[in-house]
Amino acid sequence: MTRKMNLPLTPLFVCLEGLDGTGKSTQCEMLVDWLQGLGRKVVFSRDPGSTELGNQVRQLLLGHKGAMSRECEMSLFFAARAQMVDEIIRPALNRGHDVVLDRFLLSTIAYQGYGAGLDVARMWQAGRFAAGDLLPEMTLVLDLPAEVALARLKGRPDRMESRGLDYFRLVRQGYIQEAENCHGQIQVISALGDPVEVQGRVQREIIRGFGV
Amino acid sequence: MTRKMNLPLTPLFVCLEGLDGTGKSTQCEMLVDWLQGLGRKVVFSRDPGSTELGNQVRQLLLGHKGAMSRECEMSLFFAARAQMVDEIIRPALNRGHDVVLDRFLLSTIAYQGYGAGLDVARMWQAGRFAAGDLLPEMTLVLDLPAEVALARLKGRPDRMESRGLDYFRLVRQGYIQEAENCHGQIQVISALGDPVEVQGRVQREIIRGFGV
Repeated sequence: MTRKMNLPLTPLFVCLEGLDGTGKSTQCEMLVDWLQGLGRKVVFSRDPGSTELGNQVRQLLLGHKGAMSRECEMSLFFAARAQMVDEIIRPALNRGHDVVLDRFLLSTIAYQGYGAGLDVARMWQAGRFAAGDLLPEMTLVLDLPAEVALARLKGRPDRMESRGLDYFRLVRQGYIQEAENCHGQIQVISALGDPVEVQGRVQREIIRGFGV
Repeated sequence: MTRKMNLPLTPLFVCLEGLDGTGKSTQCEMLVDWLQGLGRKVVFSRDPGSTELGNQVRQLLLGHKGAMSRECEMSLFFAARAQMVDEIIRPALNRGHDVVLDRFLLSTIAYQGYGAGLDVARMWQAGRFAAGDLLPEMTLVLDLPAEVALARLKGRPDRMESRGLDYFRLVRQGYIQEAENCHGQIQVISALGDPVEVQGRVQREIIRGFGV
């Protein structure tokens, strides 16, 4: 145990990102357990979802028949997120609790921007505004080759995942590009290997980023 | 009948705006009738609404229990509008048809910006982006004193109208301010008097703006 293992008393605001199939949900659970094991109060939230309105929006996104305009899709994600910021994230941070997110604005940038072709700079602008200018202090992108992520999703087809390999490749590239552009604090870590191994990488990044 | 009575062969894209209670629906109907009477093909659309997704979003807005974040509300309006642009407005204009709108982006600016306090410049930026950079060529704001508009709404209470007189005053002032700032082509016309009289003003503005 090094001196760097101590996390600050102030709340952490961390987001896990990445393609569907990279194991975000599992890693979020393990991260929450770890932080709670360190005696911290932790609030977990999934975007979109976690609020009543977020879930209604999620149903709209998943259930829509026919073509949905890219701008509409983007705006629905913004709406669910805005409500989550107000109902869950800000109150948690104000109480001094850590917040662990499964996805946030970077998902919309990667999927609707890099994946579907909307202007990325304008999306950051509009998306920050819709999120009340609240962004995670640290975002960790769980990275897998697109074909590996897609293969893990077999049997879980929905509107989002049905877009196929080329789309997944664009989205992955988007995550990597944005980490390079470093909007906020974005790190890419490999999601290859077993969950415990990946969680080790997640925790190392958090200690490196926040350790005092 | 003056030479100015001739409207161009290219499609008109006109929006009626204003506080609830200023008679937009009636004036839109009369405007559509008038344009059709001139032998024009006209598509009418109401924002939010008019698409299946727009109506679902409208239900979310009207039916939500508890506080909705301003950014969430804004984003839901953007979402409904984006789908309307793709499904209804662009196809109509591409077919060479006139489009008459009951509300568009300026409503969100007036209500969620001036009324509820969101940053107006950022709303224009985000809202134009979400609308695919398509704005009406001419927007006519039907103007009434806030207390007159509100009085006309008695017996029609809903989440939007329940915000009261001070809110209505801010929204009205927003419409007037934006007409002065002249984003796009915004004219304020009085909605006092009987519907035929008001429609006369609407038609005069359209002839003045588009007449060839």
